Amino acid sequence: MPYVNIKITREGATAEQKATLIRKVTELLRDELGKNPSTTVVVIDEVDTDNWGIGGESVTVRRKRGS
Amino acid sequence: MPYVNIKITREGATAEQKATLIRKVTELLRDELGKNPSTTVVVIDEVDTDNWGIGGESVTVRRKRGS
Amino acid sequence: MPYVNIKITREGATAEQKATLIRKVTELLRDELGKNPSTTVVVIDEVDTDNWGIGGESVTVRRKRGS
Amino acid sequence: MPYVNIKITREGATAEQKATLIRKVTELLRDELGKNPSTTVVVIDEVDTDNWGIGGESVTVRRKRGS
Amino acid sequence: MPYVNIKITREGATAEQKATLIRKVTELLRDELGKNPSTTVVVIDEVDTDNWGIGGESVTVRRKRGS
Amino acid sequence: MPYVNIKITREGATAEQKATLIRKVTELLRDELGKNPSTTVVVIDEVDTDNWGIGGESVTVRRKRGS
Repeated sequence: MPYVNIKITREGATAEQKATLIRKVTELLRDELGKNPSTTVVVIDEVDTDNWGIGGESVTVRRKRGS
Repeated sequence: MPYVNIKITREGATAEQKATLIRKVTELLRDELGKNPSTTVVVIDEVDTDNWGIGGESVTVRRKRGS
Repeated sequence: MPYVNIKITREGATAEQKATLIRKVTELLRDELGKNPSTTVVVIDEVDTDNWGIGGESVTVRRKRGS
Repeated sequence: MPYVNIKITREGATAEQKATLIRKVTELLRDELGKNPSTTVVVIDEVDTDNWGIGGESVTVRRKRGS
Repeated sequence: MPYVNIKITREGATAEQKATLIRKVTELLRDELGKNPSTTVVVIDEVDTDNWGIGGESVTVRRKRGS
Repeated sequence: MPYVNIKITREGATAEQKATLIRKVTELLRDELGKNPSTTVVVIDEVDTDNWGIGGESVTVRRKRGS
């Protein structure tokens, strides 16, 4: 019955990569905590790099600086 | 003073349907818990079917299989 | 398949009130958007009044002021 | 190590304004709670006015009414 | 740089199980999407069964019915 | 009309510190983006150190290691 929300920057993850992530996170919750896959919900949010900050800077700025 | 976040797959909900949902959820919190509508916030997130998983599969894949 | 998160201040909502809220929100999404109740997830978070702010003040402070 | 999620209506915030917001929220958590900026994450979500409700109405409707 | 929020019902997950979940989700994001583990944040929320609904019922009620 | 959710580890933030945080975040959104304080909502979640991971480890484990 778990609900998993994964937030990543929007930088080209493919539908295949996201499908794999959904499958493997669901399996992980079944294997480690015995959670039922049929009611496990996974939602992936892709966030623009202007809208994601770490260390007080947006990812857009960090990418330009080469970080 | 409640905050309600509703996540649904992006599959054509209209502005009218979303306005109705906002109104009725707000009324429900007033009627059941006595919450003040004027400070009740509702945010609807529409999520691409590639980014929503249930049962270990994306909704895109489930729709193709006819589930 | 919707996911609904309802945040309210922790001020004595009963198990019965929360069960009613879960049922009626689920019915609302079925009636307004045709969503399948069997995969509709509702999570209620009850938040201490020290940890909820509106208008720049915590709810604890507002309650003391009589707001 | 904080995680901050800021949701605002999508009404033209610029990359510069969002970068300033990220910086200042990160500084606030350092100054008030001693949190380490290097692991402080800020995510800004911009939400369509059709999808944001307050007082039982969408922001789109409120804007039209002049509220 | 991902942020992962895992919500589960509060039903006795141990610190060891949660530590394993944190480690494996972080590895999964590194392996599938090339995400940097050092800035991957995982937050686990444990939710009372009265506060979690699926199929229009709280988990407390479902457990009593033997579902 | 913004909604801000601040997640921090549960490590003794006082009611006064949280009240200050609520006030200053609300002022920041007014000053930088012109947002109306009266409808700005701030919710602070305090998370057990067993339930917060960064770098693939729980904060409990990191604290023991002296990180």
